Amino acid sequence: MTTSTVAPVSSGEASAITALTQFIKTGLETYAYRRFGGGAAPPLVFLQHFTGTLDNWDPAVTDELAGGREVVLFESAGVGRSTGEVPTTIEGMAAHLLAFADALGLTGIDLLGFSLGGMVAQKVAVERPSLVRRMLLVGTAPAGGEDIMHLEKPELSTILGDPSLSDYQILVKLFFTPSESSQAAGQAFVTRLAARTQDREPVSGPKVAQAQIAAFRAWERVDGERFQELGLITQPCLVVNGKLDTMIPVRNSYLLAEHLPNAMLLIYPDAGHGSLFQFHDSFVQHAMLFLDS
Amino acid sequence: MTTSTVAPVSSGEASAITALTQFIKTGLETYAYRRFGGGAAPPLVFLQHFTGTLDNWDPAVTDELAGGREVVLFESAGVGRSTGEVPTTIEGMAAHLLAFADALGLTGIDLLGFSLGGMVAQKVAVERPSLVRRMLLVGTAPAGGEDIMHLEKPELSTILGDPSLSDYQILVKLFFTPSESSQAAGQAFVTRLAARTQDREPVSGPKVAQAQIAAFRAWERVDGERFQELGLITQPCLVVNGKLDTMIPVRNSYLLAEHLPNAMLLIYPDAGHGSLFQFHDSFVQHAMLFLDS
Repeated sequence: MTTSTVAPVSSGEASAITALTQFIKTGLETYAYRRFGGGAAPPLVFLQHFTGTLDNWDPAVTDELAGGREVVLFESAGVGRSTGEVPTTIEGMAAHLLAFADALGLTGIDLLGFSLGGMVAQKVAVERPSLVRRMLLVGTAPAGGEDIMHLEKPELSTILGDPSLSDYQILVKLFFTPSESSQAAGQAFVTRLAARTQDREPVSGPKVAQAQIAAFRAWERVDGERFQELGLITQPCLVVNGKLDTMIPVRNSYLLAEHLPNAMLLIYPDAGHGSLFQFHDSFVQHAMLFLDS
Repeated sequence: MTTSTVAPVSSGEASAITALTQFIKTGLETYAYRRFGGGAAPPLVFLQHFTGTLDNWDPAVTDELAGGREVVLFESAGVGRSTGEVPTTIEGMAAHLLAFADALGLTGIDLLGFSLGGMVAQKVAVERPSLVRRMLLVGTAPAGGEDIMHLEKPELSTILGDPSLSDYQILVKLFFTPSESSQAAGQAFVTRLAARTQDREPVSGPKVAQAQIAAFRAWERVDGERFQELGLITQPCLVVNGKLDTMIPVRNSYLLAEHLPNAMLLIYPDAGHGSLFQFHDSFVQHAMLFLDS
């Protein structure tokens, strides 16, 4: 592992498959990240889902978006090769993103927060509004949301407990619907993930999962007036989900769009938690319309 | 008035401001319509809102969409210069659209149904699925929907009963939110509508309104299994609304997207019933992405 206190410049390779993992030491931890692409738009920082690492970003999404802006994939504390412990709160995870952004010298960014990452994005926007220009909030929920990542539900525990399924095939079942076309899209998705064969991150273990689940439980609690904090997030947001998301049901996206002051809502048919990967062409087009408008 | 049993060809003028009103006699009634634009995509037939006539279509929407396809604005029976009585059911209105399409020789079309027109579009897709390729369902509701066009509600009756407001200014209050930017968009909208100065339709009177309200009340009733008919509509649909629609609340759009087998949902922030006119640039972009995909 190489560490640096100076922000390395972009590798210039617009590909999640080949971009080398970089590391940056901060006052909190040393974070792994990947950075590629370029263009006039502000950098787009990607915040990852439950147990996901840098290797869980779909090149069909990241590389297309990197055509018009720099893309920065961030590995939070305790995940992959980033040092430290996974926080048990979204607030704790937001502090790591802020330390990372400061160390890289990022001052005006867009955020793509998927699932857990979407919660971190919301918290970052509240904590440091000046840092965040626009946000893509995909398959996620507001604080005080409903039925967030209850892996003990039969429709999820059956998949997670199936010893015949590989990690990738679990993703296909969890992120896509049972329809033939959605499952085919899921297989294409994991084939794209597998295209990166070198410089990969270690897969997350139970310790990562347990801490992140604790963060979900804390996020689900209603403290004070429900959804009040969303009123503080004045940035334009694009809220995206699949209508059949079993991990963070679509009504959480309705709640986000209704209570965020400036959010557009986009819901995909016959799609689950991984709508952005299933409909990657459409998602990228809509994301670029939104980011460039 | 000129009538014809042969479909006139498109005027070639891609403008709702200047396209001449045409008339076609059918076995049911003689319908007024306007037809302009052109391109490789199927014709896009526009179905109008409560008491609206051909003159209520925003050139910023129609003319942009006419760049890639023929646009056909349809005036249903009893409205404007179309003959006959306004039906008191959505089924009755759908029969008029079918008679019109048959007389024009249209065999494969896309539909843009706004509000009342979106209900007619749904019924047409159920009655004659082979006619309809794709549908844009804007500011509308499924059969058995909730709180549909209750003009007696204080927030609506106050506007409708204000003698100081012109017809156009009533539209600005009804279709746009109270925010400064939405009201400004509303003024721009009615300025665009007023740009057509010749060959205009007569404004709808109370008789039109009463029959259409009767149709809303019938549409709101739950007959049999709620939303069952939506399962029959397998065409790709794009459901669009403003999150602050006071005439047909946004939850009706959620219901549509959830129960239609193949619907994408798009909800605009700080927008009411007239979201497609307020965000006309964005709406046209999303509509074209959808129609051309």
